[in-house]
Amino acid sequence: MFVETVKSEGLAHLSYIVGHGGQAVVIDPRRDCEVYLDIAEKHGAAIQYVFETHRNEDYVIGSQELSRLTGASIHHGAATEFAYGNAVKEGDVFRVGALEFKVLETPGHTYDSISLVMRDTNAGDSPLAVFTGDALFIGDVGRTDFFPDRKEEVAGLLYDSIFEKLLPLGDQAILYPAHGAGSVCGKGMAPRDFSTIGHERKHNPLLQLGSREAFIERKVAERHPLPPYFRRMEVYNQEGTAPSVLPLPRPTPLSASAFAERMDQGLQVVDLRSPEAFAGAFIPGSIAIPLNMLAAYAGFILSYDTSIGLVAETHEQVDTAVRRLLRIGYDSIPCFLEGGLGAWEKSGREYDTIPAVHADELVRRIEEKDDFVLVDVRSEEEWESGHLPDAVHAFLGDLPDNLDVDKSRLVTTFCGSGERAIIAASILKQNGWSKVEDALGSMMACMERGCPLVEE
Amino acid sequence: MFVETVKSEGLAHLSYIVGHGGQAVVIDPRRDCEVYLDIAEKHGAAIQYVFETHRNEDYVIGSQELSRLTGASIHHGAATEFAYGNAVKEGDVFRVGALEFKVLETPGHTYDSISLVMRDTNAGDSPLAVFTGDALFIGDVGRTDFFPDRKEEVAGLLYDSIFEKLLPLGDQAILYPAHGAGSVCGKGMAPRDFSTIGHERKHNPLLQLGSREAFIERKVAERHPLPPYFRRMEVYNQEGTAPSVLPLPRPTPLSASAFAERMDQGLQVVDLRSPEAFAGAFIPGSIAIPLNMLAAYAGFILSYDTSIGLVAETHEQVDTAVRRLLRIGYDSIPCFLEGGLGAWEKSGREYDTIPAVHADELVRRIEEKDDFVLVDVRSEEEWESGHLPDAVHAFLGDLPDNLDVDKSRLVTTFCGSGERAIIAASILKQNGWSKVEDALGSMMACMERGCPLVEE
Amino acid sequence: MFVETVKSEGLAHLSYIVGHGGQAVVIDPRRDCEVYLDIAEKHGAAIQYVFETHRNEDYVIGSQELSRLTGASIHHGAATEFAYGNAVKEGDVFRVGALEFKVLETPGHTYDSISLVMRDTNAGDSPLAVFTGDALFIGDVGRTDFFPDRKEEVAGLLYDSIFEKLLPLGDQAILYPAHGAGSVCGKGMAPRDFSTIGHERKHNPLLQLGSREAFIERKVAERHPLPPYFRRMEVYNQEGTAPSVLPLPRPTPLSASAFAERMDQGLQVVDLRSPEAFAGAFIPGSIAIPLNMLAAYAGFILSYDTSIGLVAETHEQVDTAVRRLLRIGYDSIPCFLEGGLGAWEKSGREYDTIPAVHADELVRRIEEKDDFVLVDVRSEEEWESGHLPDAVHAFLGDLPDNLDVDKSRLVTTFCGSGERAIIAASILKQNGWSKVEDALGSMMACMERGCPLVEE
Amino acid sequence: MFVETVKSEGLAHLSYIVGHGGQAVVIDPRRDCEVYLDIAEKHGAAIQYVFETHRNEDYVIGSQELSRLTGASIHHGAATEFAYGNAVKEGDVFRVGALEFKVLETPGHTYDSISLVMRDTNAGDSPLAVFTGDALFIGDVGRTDFFPDRKEEVAGLLYDSIFEKLLPLGDQAILYPAHGAGSVCGKGMAPRDFSTIGHERKHNPLLQLGSREAFIERKVAERHPLPPYFRRMEVYNQEGTAPSVLPLPRPTPLSASAFAERMDQGLQVVDLRSPEAFAGAFIPGSIAIPLNMLAAYAGFILSYDTSIGLVAETHEQVDTAVRRLLRIGYDSIPCFLEGGLGAWEKSGREYDTIPAVHADELVRRIEEKDDFVLVDVRSEEEWESGHLPDAVHAFLGDLPDNLDVDKSRLVTTFCGSGERAIIAASILKQNGWSKVEDALGSMMACMERGCPLVEE
Repeated sequence: MFVETVKSEGLAHLSYIVGHGGQAVVIDPRRDCEVYLDIAEKHGAAIQYVFETHRNEDYVIGSQELSRLTGASIHHGAATEFAYGNAVKEGDVFRVGALEFKVLETPGHTYDSISLVMRDTNAGDSPLAVFTGDALFIGDVGRTDFFPDRKEEVAGLLYDSIFEKLLPLGDQAILYPAHGAGSVCGKGMAPRDFSTIGHERKHNPLLQLGSREAFIERKVAERHPLPPYFRRMEVYNQEGTAPSVLPLPRPTPLSASAFAERMDQGLQVVDLRSPEAFAGAFIPGSIAIPLNMLAAYAGFILSYDTSIGLVAETHEQVDTAVRRLLRIGYDSIPCFLEGGLGAWEKSGREYDTIPAVHADELVRRIEEKDDFVLVDVRSEEEWESGHLPDAVHAFLGDLPDNLDVDKSRLVTTFCGSGERAIIAASILKQNGWSKVEDALGSMMACMERGCPLVEE
Repeated sequence: MFVETVKSEGLAHLSYIVGHGGQAVVIDPRRDCEVYLDIAEKHGAAIQYVFETHRNEDYVIGSQELSRLTGASIHHGAATEFAYGNAVKEGDVFRVGALEFKVLETPGHTYDSISLVMRDTNAGDSPLAVFTGDALFIGDVGRTDFFPDRKEEVAGLLYDSIFEKLLPLGDQAILYPAHGAGSVCGKGMAPRDFSTIGHERKHNPLLQLGSREAFIERKVAERHPLPPYFRRMEVYNQEGTAPSVLPLPRPTPLSASAFAERMDQGLQVVDLRSPEAFAGAFIPGSIAIPLNMLAAYAGFILSYDTSIGLVAETHEQVDTAVRRLLRIGYDSIPCFLEGGLGAWEKSGREYDTIPAVHADELVRRIEEKDDFVLVDVRSEEEWESGHLPDAVHAFLGDLPDNLDVDKSRLVTTFCGSGERAIIAASILKQNGWSKVEDALGSMMACMERGCPLVEE
Repeated sequence: MFVETVKSEGLAHLSYIVGHGGQAVVIDPRRDCEVYLDIAEKHGAAIQYVFETHRNEDYVIGSQELSRLTGASIHHGAATEFAYGNAVKEGDVFRVGALEFKVLETPGHTYDSISLVMRDTNAGDSPLAVFTGDALFIGDVGRTDFFPDRKEEVAGLLYDSIFEKLLPLGDQAILYPAHGAGSVCGKGMAPRDFSTIGHERKHNPLLQLGSREAFIERKVAERHPLPPYFRRMEVYNQEGTAPSVLPLPRPTPLSASAFAERMDQGLQVVDLRSPEAFAGAFIPGSIAIPLNMLAAYAGFILSYDTSIGLVAETHEQVDTAVRRLLRIGYDSIPCFLEGGLGAWEKSGREYDTIPAVHADELVRRIEEKDDFVLVDVRSEEEWESGHLPDAVHAFLGDLPDNLDVDKSRLVTTFCGSGERAIIAASILKQNGWSKVEDALGSMMACMERGCPLVEE
Repeated sequence: MFVETVKSEGLAHLSYIVGHGGQAVVIDPRRDCEVYLDIAEKHGAAIQYVFETHRNEDYVIGSQELSRLTGASIHHGAATEFAYGNAVKEGDVFRVGALEFKVLETPGHTYDSISLVMRDTNAGDSPLAVFTGDALFIGDVGRTDFFPDRKEEVAGLLYDSIFEKLLPLGDQAILYPAHGAGSVCGKGMAPRDFSTIGHERKHNPLLQLGSREAFIERKVAERHPLPPYFRRMEVYNQEGTAPSVLPLPRPTPLSASAFAERMDQGLQVVDLRSPEAFAGAFIPGSIAIPLNMLAAYAGFILSYDTSIGLVAETHEQVDTAVRRLLRIGYDSIPCFLEGGLGAWEKSGREYDTIPAVHADELVRRIEEKDDFVLVDVRSEEEWESGHLPDAVHAFLGDLPDNLDVDKSRLVTTFCGSGERAIIAASILKQNGWSKVEDALGSMMACMERGCPLVEE
């Protein structure tokens, strides 16, 4: 009897493969799905069923890819018209070995959301675990902002799903949600991937609000980023039209001159290196998205209509980036710059740099009224919880359109720690701002140095 | 925040490394302890504390090896006089990052048994999890037979530890015991490594007996194998005298002639191959212990005073066997037969075979009163729960001394599935029984074929 | 600048990936071709050209699979009409980085055979190395028996290719042939994969015969096995019709009952275990082909028209077997027996065994004129170079049709070391011989024990 | 029969493990020697002999570490008094399987240099290969500057070793030298690791000089860097006093504050990141040595008397750096900065940056006589072969003592490609130069951009 969690870093997406007696189920598989085959093989199990806890909007579901490779049947909630797979309804039961999976309809995040209650039929009838999809997270609950004109309704549905279906499963049930900390599908998640219904019942802040009304009020007031790529994911996942990606594509290594030539033909150049490395030197026109930010921000920034060329420090980074881009539907990644930025530099081609600005210098400038614009690219909620004086707010995901600053002015980008700031700086550079700096350390450094803060 | 389980197959020993904020603790580390360093490195954590839930008797604890490599401090219960490390007592608290570990004294399995209650100080005060050592397992509790003249006392202590200390932690607490199914430290464990206090409270058979008295009665009546190697483990683990084993030793590959020569000088030859392969051909004098049985049975059979030579099918099997033998203190494994049994055969040396006997043939012989002896080598409890008519019982761990059968008779060894039977057959061959067969499939095949069974 | 050899064990097929300056060529790729992509990636090289040294007959060439994944162009000799790729002719030159590859037409093994002469244009004009395909091996030359009515002609062509084209490249040239020891494409190859033109010129036995006539005479006299699967490889490789196999198929694990049911529907069961394990117990009707013999003998024995089910000891063996079978065109491998033979035994199903017979016992039987038939399944040449008295010869690849022995007689199969003997024994069992034994150790053991030998 | 090359990147050190028939020899093992055990295991071979081709001066030899683990005997030339192992002399022969290794005394690089001539005794008597240590490289020969008062003598010895001993082995012999391209033990090596005696005889530039006198003259005129760490290597390797390093040490991850505290107690901070990342932001006082430069330059720059703390982007980089530092005797590496430079930035601590200067800007400055100093840190020979006008030369290995430039001036460091320039920039920063820039791309970019060059 095994449960293995497959975490897709960046998306903070948690999928599961669970099995017993030579059979297994997979819950919410990702598109690069060899990993489930590897785990199933290790346990000597044949994958029988693939469950989708809901029509996922933040990544391409791998159900069909996995079904093609294994013959497993696909199952999802009945409230959405999927172009593939089978609809399940409350109470449906699936067995693999001595494990039993029972469907609970737990709408709220979406109308088609289901949870799967797992029992070990050899060990009593209390649920051992529940796979809650985006209904209940560790330390948070699913977002309910996908139906703007039915906000109260869906928040209420989620409340009912949690309080009338999930909590009654008992404190003893282990909780396996579809996202961990860092996901765009919730905030306030705890930085760990293990909890129980009981622990959430007692300590999940969203479950301590005292009433259905308070819960709805709180949920309706939330604001979440809505990356434009979600729309494509919804279509892919409902219609099942995402193409197969196995064996995984391998971008071609190109020399600096070949890469430059390819850029001339149209290429979105994504630089995966660290903020410091990008700041130290980068290809003019390239966008910085440090590898660990790729899954979270590519979908705001990159176009689906232009091929992607990568700049990285290692081949391993290229491979990781390819997986992370494929998971959100960016399938055209024909090339990368072999030898990284050093190859570009040695070729004599032009490069640009972005000076770093320390927290102390920011404070000095603010105090001495230096002429510069501090552009804070964090989310609205972060901004409201405290920002530096005289800063301008422009959310990273909306750059550059939301920035009303003259392109000739000295601009310093600012965020939580400096990582989003480098993305922002690269976007501004690409869009014509000529004097751009990056506040490495950003708000975290400011907090440590005791900078003055303003709250909205 | 991470919890990773390190399972030592064969022993079914579960150890844990848990961390947050760049620090980690390890609970009950094994001797080949690089694995904890690898996991700590992956999480960017420095190992600060090593806990021993009790003076382990079934494997060599790796606390000191790990402490040497990391500088971590070692902590164990106060009721035993350890020659190293630090004693902890009820209520002692250790912190790594936002995690808090509180000591509970939970005697019963041993007097020095402790449990560690884990809280996430950022997520309420209910225990998230508890590391119970050999006090509470999934589907079972720890054995209480190590103090034969105080059986009732220690069983009562265990009852109190569970009912007064562990269950009150709350149903929501995840359970992390020191053993999983297959261990010699308990029986009846569930075939899975995940549960909660709540699930055990409701369904663990040992917790459903109704009273302290019934619990004690049940525990006192249990019979467990007591492998002779336990004594050496106890000394090693109390005195801390086990030598360092890193980097792991590598047995030398020997040709058939060199191996034969080494045998003449004194060598316990352990054949790790499958029962079928051993049956098909083996080196006279060698003992069959299929690799997956090695951790469980080597300690009954092998001497600590003679070096071990291995016969395997692959180099990987040799490496795995070395780890498993080191974990129970067999440190002298100087060589293996390169090329496996094929090399021996090609050298023209003598080999022996053990014919297989199918369940149907056993039944025929029994019915037709053929002249042969069926030697059932299962445990006493297995034997009593049902055996073939006219069979003789002799527990594998006590062979050959407990077998009163003339060495000239035809003997068929028998067990649960055929694996212990091949070990037994090899021991009988080595000790002079000349006509030995093995019932491949054994009891499981008999059940499927509907053989007649006798219950004691 | 790198040369990496990719060896396909079993076939003893050697392919190469060679590169410099961000580009690479691949010579004679196999069908499961991810390995070349991995190596190219490690070196930061894009694969530009794929060369086929000749229309290979002993495995499915992976040129098109590799070309699909990389865009590389495919090149082969002009003497065969290929349905894909580009024809090259003597003197054609290809460059990657500072490396130059020049085509030499070196017919003999086939009419379309080419060699590729490699120079480092920065280090003088002498050839650094030559890729000779099946023209010149280490210690041998290519077989010339594929055109039975032009034996002398092609042998002469090969002589000229070697003496007029390859040897003149100079002693300094490193030799990279398409096969190493163990291949069915030559015999007498040295047990190593490194040599030079100079070393072969001086010591390759085939190059020391003194004259073109002696060479031809020797080649014409040779006899080689001609496995029936060659024909399918020729079609695949000439027409380019082999289907894509990436991502590699994964057979489904089946329980004993499901496997038995699948057998009833028609399945060739191939047991990959060691000869001893098969002898110890096997599924009636299954064919033994120990994993290390699979590539060499499957093509003689297995049908392309029936799906294959595998019996193995580990999942890794299953995966390895799948690769080896795919390389020779067996693409339908839907399942394997999870849990191996142990699972079969425990299910109570019938199994069979094959007793082993030691060399000493063979001698005794022969001397004492016991009633049994020793069936020697080695090749004709091995047989003629010496065999046991009164043995019957029947080449393994032609069993059972070439065996004229009554099915009721006691038969002992015999080969070089016992591995082919177990294959033979399984075939005889499957075809109705009821009393079959296997001479583990076979001729090698006999030589060591001093058995009497007869030469034809 | 196998030859596997183990290349230690950075040092460009080539060691070999060669075997047959279950036995193997290792030539010039490195200190982190598990790799030879892994290879030996893969081939089922026991390591019998360890050869040292000479008293190595550029890394710590691993002979004793390997001998401790395997029992292999150690053998080296007789001309040096080693405190361990056995002296061999011309003509000594060692056998493993069918391979024969014969000792040739080939002095010149050192007096104790030996070569090992390998024959396959089953394939004629011509040498198959020769392991030449630092006598003959691919495209170069060993340096002869270690005995400054006997320059002509040792250069002549080397000539004789090559022309009288190595070349007579025959063109067919494969060449296995102790270094590949990039080593400080020779220059002009070809960028590949395969060649033959014949190819070198015809094309190695050092072998085309026409006479013994011309060879000596050429060798005497060469100038090589002599890193100060060589002295420690000589002592270690002659006296055998290097401590054991297995299992490899693992630096402790430290938070920014703990790392800063450790710095206060004395720590050499080595920043392994790319030049761009270091330029983008670095810890004041840290030394940049990009990971791929570590083996070549650490020995010039780092002290053996102070512990080393590492800054990296990944844990893998830390592990790689530890191996490379151990190989040259830096054994005290207690810690690294967990989270890399981002963690430092977020802690609010001060960081510094180094602006990049493009080739075009350099030219502009030079043409317009801007006030700045271009410090060229390449070797003397590189400098003499062409440099920018008005530049100042100061070899990197001698910085900062050899730089006579006022610390208040604007300094731009310059090298071949920008990598040594960042090392130089970090050293200048550490030593009080306040305005330091780095010419990313350096000479290579200048060549591409057509900068004016001056030759000495």
